[in-house]
Parts: sequence; structure tokens; C-alpha cells
Amino acid sequence: MSSERLIYLPLGGAGEIGMNAYVYGYGAPDQERLIVVDLGVTFPDMDGTPGVDLIFPDIAWLEARKDRIEGIFITHAHEDHVGAIGHYWEKLGAPVYARIFTANIARRKMAEAGQPERAVETVQAWPETVKAGPFSVGFLPVSHSIPESAGLVIDSPEGRVVHTGDFKIDHTPVVGDPFDEALWADVAKDGIKALICDSTNVFSPHEGRSEAGLAEPIEELMRDAKGMVVATTFASNIARLKTLAVAGRNAGRSVCLLGRAMRRMTEAAIETGLLKDFPPTISPEDAQMLPRENVLLLATGSQGERRAASAQLSQGKYLGLRLKEGDTFLFSSKTIPGNEKSVIRIMNNLSEMGVDVIDDAGGKYHVSGHANRPDLEKMHEIMRPQMLIPMHGEHRHLREHVKIAEAKGMTGVVAVNGMMINLSGNAPKVEEYVETGRTYLDGAVQVGALDGIIRDRIRMALNGHVIVTLIIDEDDEPLGDPWCEVMGLSETGRGNAPLVEILEADLAQFLARAKDRTMMDDDRLEKELKKIVRQVTQNEIGKKPEVTVVVSRLG
Amino acid sequence: MSSERLIYLPLGGAGEIGMNAYVYGYGAPDQERLIVVDLGVTFPDMDGTPGVDLIFPDIAWLEARKDRIEGIFITHAHEDHVGAIGHYWEKLGAPVYARIFTANIARRKMAEAGQPERAVETVQAWPETVKAGPFSVGFLPVSHSIPESAGLVIDSPEGRVVHTGDFKIDHTPVVGDPFDEALWADVAKDGIKALICDSTNVFSPHEGRSEAGLAEPIEELMRDAKGMVVATTFASNIARLKTLAVAGRNAGRSVCLLGRAMRRMTEAAIETGLLKDFPPTISPEDAQMLPRENVLLLATGSQGERRAASAQLSQGKYLGLRLKEGDTFLFSSKTIPGNEKSVIRIMNNLSEMGVDVIDDAGGKYHVSGHANRPDLEKMHEIMRPQMLIPMHGEHRHLREHVKIAEAKGMTGVVAVNGMMINLSGNAPKVEEYVETGRTYLDGAVQVGALDGIIRDRIRMALNGHVIVTLIIDEDDEPLGDPWCEVMGLSETGRGNAPLVEILEADLAQFLARAKDRTMMDDDRLEKELKKIVRQVTQNEIGKKPEVTVVVSRLG
Repeated sequence: MSSERLIYLPLGGAGEIGMNAYVYGYGAPDQERLIVVDLGVTFPDMDGTPGVDLIFPDIAWLEARKDRIEGIFITHAHEDHVGAIGHYWEKLGAPVYARIFTANIARRKMAEAGQPERAVETVQAWPETVKAGPFSVGFLPVSHSIPESAGLVIDSPEGRVVHTGDFKIDHTPVVGDPFDEALWADVAKDGIKALICDSTNVFSPHEGRSEAGLAEPIEELMRDAKGMVVATTFASNIARLKTLAVAGRNAGRSVCLLGRAMRRMTEAAIETGLLKDFPPTISPEDAQMLPRENVLLLATGSQGERRAASAQLSQGKYLGLRLKEGDTFLFSSKTIPGNEKSVIRIMNNLSEMGVDVIDDAGGKYHVSGHANRPDLEKMHEIMRPQMLIPMHGEHRHLREHVKIAEAKGMTGVVAVNGMMINLSGNAPKVEEYVETGRTYLDGAVQVGALDGIIRDRIRMALNGHVIVTLIIDEDDEPLGDPWCEVMGLSETGRGNAPLVEILEADLAQFLARAKDRTMMDDDRLEKELKKIVRQVTQNEIGKKPEVTVVVSRLG
Repeated sequence: MSSERLIYLPLGGAGEIGMNAYVYGYGAPDQERLIVVDLGVTFPDMDGTPGVDLIFPDIAWLEARKDRIEGIFITHAHEDHVGAIGHYWEKLGAPVYARIFTANIARRKMAEAGQPERAVETVQAWPETVKAGPFSVGFLPVSHSIPESAGLVIDSPEGRVVHTGDFKIDHTPVVGDPFDEALWADVAKDGIKALICDSTNVFSPHEGRSEAGLAEPIEELMRDAKGMVVATTFASNIARLKTLAVAGRNAGRSVCLLGRAMRRMTEAAIETGLLKDFPPTISPEDAQMLPRENVLLLATGSQGERRAASAQLSQGKYLGLRLKEGDTFLFSSKTIPGNEKSVIRIMNNLSEMGVDVIDDAGGKYHVSGHANRPDLEKMHEIMRPQMLIPMHGEHRHLREHVKIAEAKGMTGVVAVNGMMINLSGNAPKVEEYVETGRTYLDGAVQVGALDGIIRDRIRMALNGHVIVTLIIDEDDEPLGDPWCEVMGLSETGRGNAPLVEILEADLAQFLARAKDRTMMDDDRLEKELKKIVRQVTQNEIGKKPEVTVVVSRLG
């Protein structure tokens, strides 16, 4: 049936790293039955999203097609893949499928958002599959920096597509599934139509290293350390937690978990049977009683998060624990671009306390969870897809990944958020551009990225805010002088005269001469007063502030 | 005379990287004659200093002792060493000494700030010295990432101190002075009291590489590139500009300089005779006429600066030049922590245009201007100081540097901004803590870091701003209802009701019941209204906004 088509549509995660949300569809144009792969979030920053709590992909396109969604498949339990499930589930309403650990985390997110946990169904690994409309979907185990990451084998009447999910090629991942080349090759043995492939580390030229290689150097560090050792990493990196904890135990240290995520993740990993032989842990109270050289703290906050355990420890006491001269702090992590300053702040605070800080500068204490370039090339060779579509990357990553594919004779396309790709033919074809974007969780409400709300906040931060209040009487005459309040601007200008007084004098002067036409028209009046405030402030202190004019009319 | 002392006091640059300002003094306590070494700035960011133009060290301590300042010595022309000279000169009034290139830049800064250029005196390299009160100061040439960086040989009645300035050990720096080990050793041959030493790269474990080593890989890149090549680096890195330009010429490319700083720096280098054999440059208009493979653009903005040439090129046309598929963009630079996101934004914009972006990930196209750990150790060995005082580093750098010194039997001290160190004895002694800090240039006015102005801006950015206007009549009764305006907050709350209406209703309700005591007291009224606005907004949209209350009383 040539009228039907197989489509791929990223709504988040393609052209950025974060908030993954991919759609596959099969059917007649505009009637495709749909599946969603991952529903993640991304994190705000002061530069572009001050005060925002979380960033979500805009899924208006999906919402409008809610009745066509057959299922939501979550590849793994990282926030940028599962973080939006609780928040968005009601809008989509379809069953959620995941493997046991991921499903455990997804259910916690559903519960937190007041959504039904039973909507999340646990699926066993490939060869088990889920029937979802015209699709049959299986979870193909793969190694990553969280247990149970999975690629998806997506079978449709148009053939097989493999969505790698986030992955690395690790044969000894400590916890979770080793990369099983034979299994992946078997899935692809009859040829696959398209490989939708992780691109994060496409610029890393060397073959990736295994998680298992960290055990020795970390244990050595823990043995050599004289005082207390604190180690931080992503709480979801269960393998790393185990590597750290076992190294600690072998070095004669009792392990104490600090931070909610740290406890929640290990709990989930133990509940689901993934985390075995984890050393027994002690409470912060008990940790205080032990000699310092017998303690290992595993703390949240490797990215410098302000409220996490690492930041708190760097600022003084946390749960009764206080670091001091001779202690060691290990960042078993890589700093994500944008977080450098926060991480460095913690390092310097620790330095002031006399704590020795060790980071991954030398590459001994951390390995990435993503496939480097040679590993990506290996994946291409194993799968030999007809088309390669890079995902999970900024534009530069996607573009580089397509170049690699094309150099090997595969067809590739840089498909960014909103580009609907038709996979039915022999080459990927851009079918349509769908409107996409971001929405923000701001406090308890959702605001659009383009609503202007956050833009106003940024402007106030850059320029300050002047408020003008004016009372106008029944005869359209000003009642007294206008009144100015200033927030976020110097009180005095160039000549050391108070800014507010100069503003009020100039506004009063304008009003004294203003025509009736102006005085009777709120919009016009507001516009004129704003203009004066901006000009005067520019003259006096060299900045053009945001201005709010409040005109109150009596009678 | 045991009552006199030799002191060292960093006011900026120790415990941070940026805004260097160091003071040395000799004399009876609190009557020391002073010299200032460097007067630099540091750059604002959205996290802590939104909207701020430049950050200066707080020099109130120096200003109060203006009559005791004998001279200001500038080690080199980087912004974090010379950037504040125009702005601050009037407050200090002392002669400014620098070598020819640095003096040229310093004079430009004085002129821009309306200060007398003649206050800047050019000094030849060591063994020439300047007499400054009890001090005799000489400029000891050293290699760095700008021509003519100098260490200072500071002789006092208490002995000789050497202030390294920023440096690396480079025997083939392409432009400027090669590191002259014999010269430095000669200065120290009779022993030096203290070495005040750059600490920036103390965590870099490998010996530094020479500028000259970049010529070959860069030329290869320029030859291999098919289209236009754009290269960006710090404009002050004259050696790099020459390396890039010569490589371009050798690869058959004409060189075009883009960006004001690029032209100003090369101009200064040519004027002062430092930059010889620089290939002739062409205008942007001429560059447009040439085949793409015959063009090399040298552009400002390696740190992602929004208005610099690199950012502009990445967004479209700049001075008639437009990049396209097949062009190459080289970041011959390292991204300073905090600038990653801005640099990555440019890279992705270029990627969207089809431009190949090459950065220093492989280490082939950039070398640092600072001494790495082995080079610092070499410097210690050459100089064999009695004491080592690290500077130009965050706390962690200073601490690590002291550790290295102590491991070799030198006495060291972590001296951060405001710590006055007595160098007279056999070991550095902390004498006093001086109040230091930062001041901001915000538009045309100076604001203190602790004035609360920038804090208010940050709060508005995080929390939004609600303005309440209330008119109270002659009888202390509200005239009509209070009026709310909202900036930077969602218009509607949880229940989709307009926030402003809910606020106004709740405030009106409060006012209807308010006691006379409250209505007659502006402060009390303001406090109560603020509380209500914060509570209601918290309930409705989950955020506690900044609130400005304007109460207008009639009569």
C-alpha cells in the first residue's frame, strides 16, 4: 500500500542534548498510528531561563493526536529521557512501557505527579516484544551509565528500525547489561531500514573505556587517602556507586549515602534486583562516630547543584558531618558544559577548608556513558543500516555523525526537532516541518518559551525596573506629581543626584505641558512616560530600564 | 631598623582569576610607601552580575592612602592587568610605568577614560630600573600570550622580591621575548626574599608547549581547507595572530582582520615595532571579491562574546561577508570556564550553515600562555626564593602551588585578596586583613557588589516582580481597590484564573478589614500588602515574587 508511510519525528533531543522525545508513526499520511520514544526534561540556567524549575519539550503536536498514540516507550531512567513522564502522561494517556528498573523509576515519577502507576507496564528484554498498533517493539539491552538502558527494535510493515537509545560499548559495565554484539548483529541480520543513533560523543576520537577499569585507581585513591573521602557522581550511575562503594570497603571504609537521589536510586536498583553485593551502608550519625579514615561518603551534586549534598558539605556542616584539612573529595564525574562555575565554586570552598579535591582531569576516575567515535563506527558496522539518522546531539554532533555515515556509503540526514522524516523510501526524506519548542515549569505553572514572561525577567535582570505611578483626577489633570520607584538600579546618577527625583521632576514637567489628548488616553500617556523614563535613566546612569506605568484615574 | 617592614597585599587576583591588583609597601607600619602592580578588570556574567558592564577590584584601601603611592607598574597589556587603569587612575594619581607595547595600550585606555596619557611612562627592560620611593623596580622580560609580558624585580631595603607576572616558559614564542633562563637566574643569584608567582596552570601536569609548534599544524589546516577559513583567538595574542596570518599566506590566503580589538592590537604591535613581517591585510570588501580558498579571516570573539565578529559571522552576514557550506572555522583558543555555552552556541550556528568547526579538543591549534606545573617547578628552581607566594589563581590553585613549594622545602603561604603579608622575617607572616571586594560599572555608574542593586535584579529574574498601587484618601480610607501589575510572572495561576484579579480581590478584602492603625502607617501597610501578595502568588503559581508597594495619599 504505497499510500502508507513510516515516519520519524523528533520533538526534543535532536539539535540539543536534553529533553528527548521522539515519535515514530506508520499509516496513511496524517492518520499514522504513533508511538513515543522517551519523554525527558532539560535543566534551566540563569542565562536563558532564570527562575525556571524545569524545561519540557512542547508536545502540542502529539496532544492534538492523542487518539493515535499506541504507547510510550522509555529507553532508560535518566531525567532527560523519563523526567517528563509524570508531568505529561495525562495529556497523552497511552500505556508506558519500560524494563523493570526504568519502570520502577517511571512509576515513582507518575506517583509524584499524581498519575496512575499502573499505566507503566514492565517489559522483559528482547526477544519479548510489545504490540503497539502497527508496530511491534522490543527492548534490546545495551550498556550505558545507568542500568538497563535499552535500544528499541521497532518493527513496522515497512521494515525494521533500531533506535539505539543512549549507549556505549562496554563489555564489563559492573552493573547492568554488557554490550552483546552478537545479539545486536542478530537483530540486524536481515537488514534494517534505519538506525537512529546516539551522537553525544561523536567528537571523542578514542575508543571508550570500560567502567570496570575504574575499580583499581579508585581503590588506590581510597587507600592512600588519610582522612575522610567524599565521592560524588550522578546518583543514577549505579555501576559507579558500586565501584566507589566496593573500593571504599576494600580500603576499610564504611559507606554512607548522602542526598535524596542517592538513596532513591540505590533503593530502586536493589528493589529490582540489579544491585547485588552492595556494601552495607551506615547513617550520617554513625559516620560521625567512626575514625575519618574509615569513612566514605557518596554524595549527590556532581554538577554543582546548589542544594545537593556536595554543595552543602562545601559550605559547612551537613547532617552533622563537616569536612576538614586532610580529607579528600573526588569528583567521579565530568562537568556538563554550563555547570563549570558552580563546580569550581565547590572546589574552591573545599580548598578553603583544606580538603584535597580530585577531579577527572587525568581521566582516571571517570568514564563516559556514551559511545565515542570509533564505537559509533563499530555500531554502524554491526547494524549496517540502510539509513543513519543521528539523534541525541546538538546540530554539530548530528552533522558530524552524518558525515561519518556518508563517508561509509550510508545515507544519512541531519534531522533536528520538528523535522518529520519519511523512512519509507530508499533514502530519508524530509516530509514536513512541525512546530516544536519548549515549555517551562515555573513554580507550579506552565509557561511557554515564547510567552515573553521569562524574557521580561531577563530584561529586568539586565536593565533594572522603574515603576511610575500617576493619579489623574476627574478633570483629566494629574493629581499631585508622578511617583517613581526603582528596583535594581543605582539610586544616584552621574551627578550624584537621586535618580528618582530627576525622573519625577522631568515627568512632572512633561505632564504640566501635556495636551488633553494625551492626558485622556492611557496608552498614549503610558508610552510617553516610558519614553521619558528611559531617556532620563539613559542620561543619568547609562541604562535603559524596563518601565511599568500605573495610571490611576479617579472617578 | 626593625620598626620598618616590607609588605605584600593583593587587592585582586589572589583567590580568583581576574582583576589583578597587588600592592607592595615598605616603611614603618601604616606609613609604608606603596607601589601598585597591575590594575585589571574581570568580566560579568548572568549568574552573579546580570547587566553589569565591567567588574573592578575595590581599591578603597589604596584610595585612602593615595599620598603614599609611588607608582603603578603594569606587567602586561591583558585586560585583567591593565583594564582598570583609565577608570582608576584619577583616584590614585601616581605615575604609571610599563614597557613600550603595554604603555601603548595603557595610554589608549587613559585617553578613552579622559585621563592624561602622559601619566604613562615607558620603561626599558631590565637592567633599567625605576626608582619609586624606597623601591627600585625593573621589568624582567618573560614569555606569555601577549608580547612583552614582564616579571618585576622589586628591590627594597629588606631585599629583593620578584613578581613573575603572568608567564610561561617558551623559548620560541614567535613574537616577543623568549624566556631567558640565564637572565632570570642572574637576578636571583644573590638570593631573593620572595617569589610572587603565577598559579593559573598549576593543575596542568605536562610541560608547556611552545607557540612555535603551532605553525605547522595550522598551516596544514589552512592548506587542506577547501573554502574560506576563519580563525579566532584573543586579539592580544599577537604571536598567534602572526602564526595564523603567516600560515594563511603560505597557504595562498589573503588575511582580513575582523573586529575592533583585532585591528587595535595589531596596530599597537606594529607601532611599537614588535610585530614585523606580518602579511599585508585586505579589507572585508576586498575579501568578498577573492575566491573563498584565498581568504583567511582573523576574527574577534573566541570566548563567544555576543557582539564580536565570530558571533556575528555565525548569525549571518558581517561586513558583507557570509560563511557557507565548505568553509572552515578554527577556534585557536581555549574556552574560559563559564563561556562554554556561548562558544557552543556559535559552533552550532556555524554547523547549521554547513561550516566545519575545529576547536582545540586535540591540542593541535592552541597552547596556553601560562606555566604548567613542571614549568612552575622549573621557575622555583631557577629563582630559589626564600618564600613562595602564589598569585593569579583561585584558592585551589594557590593552595596547590603552596603544597608544591613546601614539598621542596620552601616556605609558602596562601595569601588571598585582603591578606596583608609581612615579608620582612624569615617566613611570610599574615599581618592584617584588609577589607576588599568588587565594584561594578553598571551603565555609567559605579555600584558596590554589596549595595543590593544587583541582588534585586537577580531576584526579579528568579522570582518576577509584582507592583501594587494603592490610593488612600484624606480619611485614611482606600480610594477604590488596590491595583496590581505583574512583570515576569504567568498571567494565570493554577486554576486558570487571572493572577492579578485574585491578588486585587484578596488585597481589597484585607483593606476592607484593616484597622486604622494599619491604614495610617505606610510601613506597616506596605509590609502587610507584600505579605499577602507573596502568599497569594505562592498559592496560585508557586513562586514568591519581589513586591513593590506604592501607596499614594491624597491630601
